[in-house]
Amino acid sequence: MPDQNPDQNNNDYPSNLTPLYVLGEFGLIDRLTSDIKLYHKETLKGVGDDAAVIDAGEKVMLLSTDLLVEGIHFDMVYTPLKHLGYKAAVVNISDIAAMNGIPKQLTVSVAASSRFSVEALDELYRGIKLACERYKVDLVGGDTSSSNKGLIISVSILGEAEKEEVVYRSGARPNDLICVSGDLGSAYMGLLLLEREKKVFQVNPDMQPELEGFDYQVGRQLKPEARTDIRETLKKLGIKPTSMIDISDGLASETLHLCKQSGTGCRLYEDKIPINPETRELSMEFKIIPSVAALSGGEDYELLFTVSQNDYEKIKGAEGISIIGHMTDASEGKAMVTADNKEIALTAQGWDGMKNDEPGRL
Amino acid sequence: MPDQNPDQNNNDYPSNLTPLYVLGEFGLIDRLTSDIKLYHKETLKGVGDDAAVIDAGEKVMLLSTDLLVEGIHFDMVYTPLKHLGYKAAVVNISDIAAMNGIPKQLTVSVAASSRFSVEALDELYRGIKLACERYKVDLVGGDTSSSNKGLIISVSILGEAEKEEVVYRSGARPNDLICVSGDLGSAYMGLLLLEREKKVFQVNPDMQPELEGFDYQVGRQLKPEARTDIRETLKKLGIKPTSMIDISDGLASETLHLCKQSGTGCRLYEDKIPINPETRELSMEFKIIPSVAALSGGEDYELLFTVSQNDYEKIKGAEGISIIGHMTDASEGKAMVTADNKEIALTAQGWDGMKNDEPGRL
Repeated sequence: MPDQNPDQNNNDYPSNLTPLYVLGEFGLIDRLTSDIKLYHKETLKGVGDDAAVIDAGEKVMLLSTDLLVEGIHFDMVYTPLKHLGYKAAVVNISDIAAMNGIPKQLTVSVAASSRFSVEALDELYRGIKLACERYKVDLVGGDTSSSNKGLIISVSILGEAEKEEVVYRSGARPNDLICVSGDLGSAYMGLLLLEREKKVFQVNPDMQPELEGFDYQVGRQLKPEARTDIRETLKKLGIKPTSMIDISDGLASETLHLCKQSGTGCRLYEDKIPINPETRELSMEFKIIPSVAALSGGEDYELLFTVSQNDYEKIKGAEGISIIGHMTDASEGKAMVTADNKEIALTAQGWDGMKNDEPGRL
Repeated sequence: MPDQNPDQNNNDYPSNLTPLYVLGEFGLIDRLTSDIKLYHKETLKGVGDDAAVIDAGEKVMLLSTDLLVEGIHFDMVYTPLKHLGYKAAVVNISDIAAMNGIPKQLTVSVAASSRFSVEALDELYRGIKLACERYKVDLVGGDTSSSNKGLIISVSILGEAEKEEVVYRSGARPNDLICVSGDLGSAYMGLLLLEREKKVFQVNPDMQPELEGFDYQVGRQLKPEARTDIRETLKKLGIKPTSMIDISDGLASETLHLCKQSGTGCRLYEDKIPINPETRELSMEFKIIPSVAALSGGEDYELLFTVSQNDYEKIKGAEGISIIGHMTDASEGKAMVTADNKEIALTAQGWDGMKNDEPGRL
């Protein structure tokens, strides 16, 4: 009874089999979930949004899950375990925020190799519990196991919302305004900074990391926050977004998701994309166009959403929210208008969990 | 910035840190979850049962999660990927059955190393979808990622139940009858058989595995089923169990969980434990006392439950359900009465995801 999956490099892959990186994460998900059958009328939305939506009678429940794998999603050389635990919870909380819901309960499963001690897991859970306290989420279950290599964290989250409150990726219409909370690109520049200092340290372990002046960028990478406050902000403004998604993979990738699922095109305006001044500075240092850091960097966990043109007066002065473009008819394509008024096609260059040979990623 | 968790063997572990295996899975869970705060009144039950219980207004929702790690929970040498996918879904479905609920939606996260092809994941998902079809569960989401080593599968499941239907581990009272569905120990003997044939194969790859005559045992290990039918059976008999748990870690471990959480003692009767004749035969061949296979083997995914003495007449003739003992006052201890009428203390020798040096396990 030979192993069906002999350990081998991609180089000598049998010709009748397809390596995972060929499809990439989204291609793979599309393939694996294309023929899914749903059996319950309570399942209002299955695969394909930030969370599944389940009719629970009075309200709807929102269910989402995220997997963090050492060496793929995080590097233990510069990631404090407490921060990692916090982040693992936050990326899930963000998924519920992206549905315009309220995060309520989460489960945490951890597989750790023998190089992790009980005290290390204490630290990890301290971070998880801190996020639970900050966002008022109940840690209600999980699973622990050993692993043969490294640390794997799987978090699942349950949120709730009124039925009419839920915002899907698919609701945008041509002419809707494209808005984003906070600023973008900082988490990515934080990552590049940490990676640079890691390399310096590997060459000369006596060197101290030069992270000074860039606390914000490093913090955005290691300990992001979820924008659960946007739901309240928009409610107070009397606005219900027409579509929404959180920015985990980069502005370009997420905008394309909204366009694809809403059946629209879009125009983003480069000079409207909110970027922190130090992030801009750091980008130049790394010879990266700042808007590219925002478009392709990811992990900012800000919310990208669309609102009706009719809500322009309500949203235009909202603090911490930027209008960065508008939806168009699908026939007009998906593009960014640069500062010098040229149109470039929007392509997803974002983080892909299946392609870990990306520049700037582990 | 040195790694906080230098890769090292347990042998040279720093004296101020505690290796994970010292606490074991349940000790670790107790430690990590001891100081959890709950913020929502909707969280009726958090950590500590087969699933969390969440008040959703008309009904309650049940949330559970399980992690399967290659090399710890399964061995790709003899585990067909389709069976593995099926099992990953079933072990979660079983958790909902153990709460007397109806499984409804599940999410699947997979991390796979580059030795797994797209076609391999197709097979895995074929098994997951087959279980979803068989148990009428909707696959509603998930996450995919690469991993540096092996395959990791994390499944989370949502079930529902009427509020008054839910059965907890904690409801048993002294004198309640201890019952079990199906038969026990077969999955464990199936595992030992597969491990034996693996070793034979490693010595001589031309040898064909000798599994004939033991399809049942091998099937119980590789492709278990969840007892979602027990809920209906008991409902028809007019019985609501006082406590319930599914048998994933072995009869002894699960009985002790019920006793601990219900604050009772117990007596199990060795000669009442249902064991399949071939499993008994195979046990003898492996020089294992059959009841020990049932007590410590695990992975049978049968349901262990208690019913009131008043329900004795209703349950005694029920097909496929065995009465194997009764609860006692806590002061009477937890014991098994052997066939020759001796009492032996019940101890958990079951599967522990943190101690993978167990006999018969990977």
